[in-house]
Amino acid sequence: MVDAARGGDLNVFRRLQEVTPWVNAYRRAGLAIGFVPTLGALHAGHRSLMRAARRECDRVVLSVFVNPTQFGPDEDLDAYPRTPEDDLAACLDEGVDLVWFAERDEMYPPRFQTWVAVEDMTRALCGVSRPHHFRGVTTVVPQLLHVVRPHRAYFGQKDYQQSLVIRRLVDDLHIDTEVRVCPTQRDPDGLAVSSRNRYLSDAERQVALRLNRALGVGRDAILAGDTSRSRVTGEMMRVLQPGGELRLDYLEVRDAETLAELSGERLEVETTPVVIVVAAFVGQARLIDNVVVQGRMAGCHEDRID
Amino acid sequence: MVDAARGGDLNVFRRLQEVTPWVNAYRRAGLAIGFVPTLGALHAGHRSLMRAARRECDRVVLSVFVNPTQFGPDEDLDAYPRTPEDDLAACLDEGVDLVWFAERDEMYPPRFQTWVAVEDMTRALCGVSRPHHFRGVTTVVPQLLHVVRPHRAYFGQKDYQQSLVIRRLVDDLHIDTEVRVCPTQRDPDGLAVSSRNRYLSDAERQVALRLNRALGVGRDAILAGDTSRSRVTGEMMRVLQPGGELRLDYLEVRDAETLAELSGERLEVETTPVVIVVAAFVGQARLIDNVVVQGRMAGCHEDRID
Repeated sequence: MVDAARGGDLNVFRRLQEVTPWVNAYRRAGLAIGFVPTLGALHAGHRSLMRAARRECDRVVLSVFVNPTQFGPDEDLDAYPRTPEDDLAACLDEGVDLVWFAERDEMYPPRFQTWVAVEDMTRALCGVSRPHHFRGVTTVVPQLLHVVRPHRAYFGQKDYQQSLVIRRLVDDLHIDTEVRVCPTQRDPDGLAVSSRNRYLSDAERQVALRLNRALGVGRDAILAGDTSRSRVTGEMMRVLQPGGELRLDYLEVRDAETLAELSGERLEVETTPVVIVVAAFVGQARLIDNVVVQGRMAGCHEDRID
Repeated sequence: MVDAARGGDLNVFRRLQEVTPWVNAYRRAGLAIGFVPTLGALHAGHRSLMRAARRECDRVVLSVFVNPTQFGPDEDLDAYPRTPEDDLAACLDEGVDLVWFAERDEMYPPRFQTWVAVEDMTRALCGVSRPHHFRGVTTVVPQLLHVVRPHRAYFGQKDYQQSLVIRRLVDDLHIDTEVRVCPTQRDPDGLAVSSRNRYLSDAERQVALRLNRALGVGRDAILAGDTSRSRVTGEMMRVLQPGGELRLDYLEVRDAETLAELSGERLEVETTPVVIVVAAFVGQARLIDNVVVQGRMAGCHEDRID
């Protein structure tokens, strides 16, 4: 029975037609819905999103769907970790109200042929080495939002480009959902939490730590007053030591708001906050990380990256 | 003041932030919203959609937006008729509750870059001669639906391919709106009502009448038992007399449900209903028309095309 007024229970569903009556009941009861869309394999990053949703909304809905269309043909779709029991335990722990394990036959039925694309912003960075990725993301996100109809949807800053792309999508299509982006969660050694970290051996993990170390060096240089983009990038490259065990995909300093390339050599973070974004392969894992750097006067929170 | 409970008044708005409080109030009051998205220049076809919405819903919202992205660079965007006063009079007449004259700066702000595409179904027929058209339609329709959040949205069967494309879009993205397709409206001489008919001179109009006459001949042949696709098409071509004053774009018999090409020569409308679709230029006007033909046993209504 749908009883939206009674919170505190965890409902677990697979089919669309099970989810919609609950969402409709939440809406009818005037309850604010917070939504955390995930690929499962829930970790501390997802938990921070669930907590933010729990804090800011009356009901928390979490979806688990390893969306095939955001994986390229040579990527890790089949190997991607699936841990439904652990996911449920995490949801119980964090006070989630409804978990939706979405199913492929409902998300992509045989005659499916509708695709959503955010064009400019997805051509750079991760869009270069993962040419199918964002089209998959920007197609599945509206699908999920249309089913869950949340007041707020929660994404992690670790996927920085994705978070900007989704904001753009939601704005451009006038979707009535507030996009909330929560800070990257890190393990005690500083590595950004990711489901793909489990692909790393201990030795590879040590190599992977260069990513956030390099970001820290870059951020500190800028905050210490270095305004030369090439010098800052050079310092970060000395920490990254690309080649060998770490195959660099990209390391760039970009406009934090639009992800546009910076026009000049000179960094002026007091007026144009920047984001330093990095992606690299270590062993089997493709890892990404980022840090936003803005002027000390901007008054916004600073990322914790170490 | 937003007072959703009081019907009977016509509200006229231009800005998003004026429309949403009303839509939200309708929703909160449990009122069913019927939506008629248009390019303005309202005619008998639109009126039939407004009446269907009026009949089936508690509140009727109509949008007027000459969506630039569905016009190709050589098409009639600038010449497209704009008749806001007449449109308002028609809305008053038909008991519309809210008219939204959407504005370009809100639909396509400077950083806009999100596009929705229905892929397979838009490659044929009108998609060939109007390569940009459907992407514009399938982008603006979700934008409009997200703002108006209707229970039902009304489209005309005259744009047959468009209606199937929009059904596909709404199904694929799980948009919670029922797509209603209403029969083509015709003038007493049989010409399908269209805003573009005003481009026709009296002589051109006589030529244009061959379209629905040809469709009638094709339909009658099939219903009389002719199962040869090429023979039926040949009979229609004799009526159309393409070349000269009538430049044929396409004339095809296709699967009425999927718009797929028929695999064989033999028409079996008892099992596979077909649609005959035609598009042609007459003078400055590009005209389209269609008729669905299904077996007499299927029990569905037959199109009136004459």
